[in-house]
Amino acid sequence: MSREPTIPDDAEHGNYQPRWHVVLYQPEIPYNTGSVGRTCVAVGAKLWLVRPLGFRVDDYHLRRAGLDYWQYLEWEVVDDWPALTARLPPNRHWYFTKFAERTLAEAELPGGAVLVFGRESTGLPTEIRTAAPERQLRIPTRDAVRSLNLSNSVAVALYEAVRQSGGTVL
Amino acid sequence: MSREPTIPDDAEHGNYQPRWHVVLYQPEIPYNTGSVGRTCVAVGAKLWLVRPLGFRVDDYHLRRAGLDYWQYLEWEVVDDWPALTARLPPNRHWYFTKFAERTLAEAELPGGAVLVFGRESTGLPTEIRTAAPERQLRIPTRDAVRSLNLSNSVAVALYEAVRQSGGTVL
Repeated sequence: MSREPTIPDDAEHGNYQPRWHVVLYQPEIPYNTGSVGRTCVAVGAKLWLVRPLGFRVDDYHLRRAGLDYWQYLEWEVVDDWPALTARLPPNRHWYFTKFAERTLAEAELPGGAVLVFGRESTGLPTEIRTAAPERQLRIPTRDAVRSLNLSNSVAVALYEAVRQSGGTVL
Repeated sequence: MSREPTIPDDAEHGNYQPRWHVVLYQPEIPYNTGSVGRTCVAVGAKLWLVRPLGFRVDDYHLRRAGLDYWQYLEWEVVDDWPALTARLPPNRHWYFTKFAERTLAEAELPGGAVLVFGRESTGLPTEIRTAAPERQLRIPTRDAVRSLNLSNSVAVALYEAVRQSGGTVL
């Protein structure tokens, strides 16, 4: 298990033209991020990671969960939230949070939509998700479950976007 | 980390009346099964595990990924495929496989549907999934990705079933 970085942050990309963007805000669990990366490749979404991260991008679990696909992934790491919004304007953001009134089924997720997810432990900070309260979304769950696993939430949201786009991946 | 079983296989259940059934055939990775259990609680599906399993049901990773919710889960372990079909007749089965022609979007997943998923490494055995070739389903992915992570596949399929049922969980 090497601890040396094998994926430079400034890697050249060019695997595909992203149809959607997925933002993980300060993700904590590498296995989840790896799995999200795999799903992003599967549908042609670009993955953005907002620092600080709970792992190194060469983490063993990240590799195990998704790194077979990492070379095919469009992805980028940014230092903080302002750096993210400078690159992806908030007017296309959707904030996934258990506090939302609106459900995923009531959202429109056209090409270019930015799907934003918070930390596994604490979700999105209030100041981020309430900047556009009408663009907060929740994935419905029975009361016994606070939320889905992060990578499951991303997969459900991305495949809803795929469905809305005709059910095919390009 | 205790290695003593804490979840007896013959536990009394009664958390909810299952709307759907999820079958994991010989799952290998406990983190995935834990995560699937969490999603099953979230939507009110019953989880069936077909032996042999790649882990003990008291596994640490299973616990970490889903055991907070395990006490709320309707679940059952069966010894082999004939034992499963004796309990859940195949006429409501849907087999998830990358070899399917039909996509998830083309399936009807009403209450009572049985969603069957294979091993992480090898998928469903040919003899199981081809017993009803027209009920094989695939989740579309770009060519670079062989398949989604198992727990992601289950989540995408279950939330398509939720969507078809009006988008609400009970």
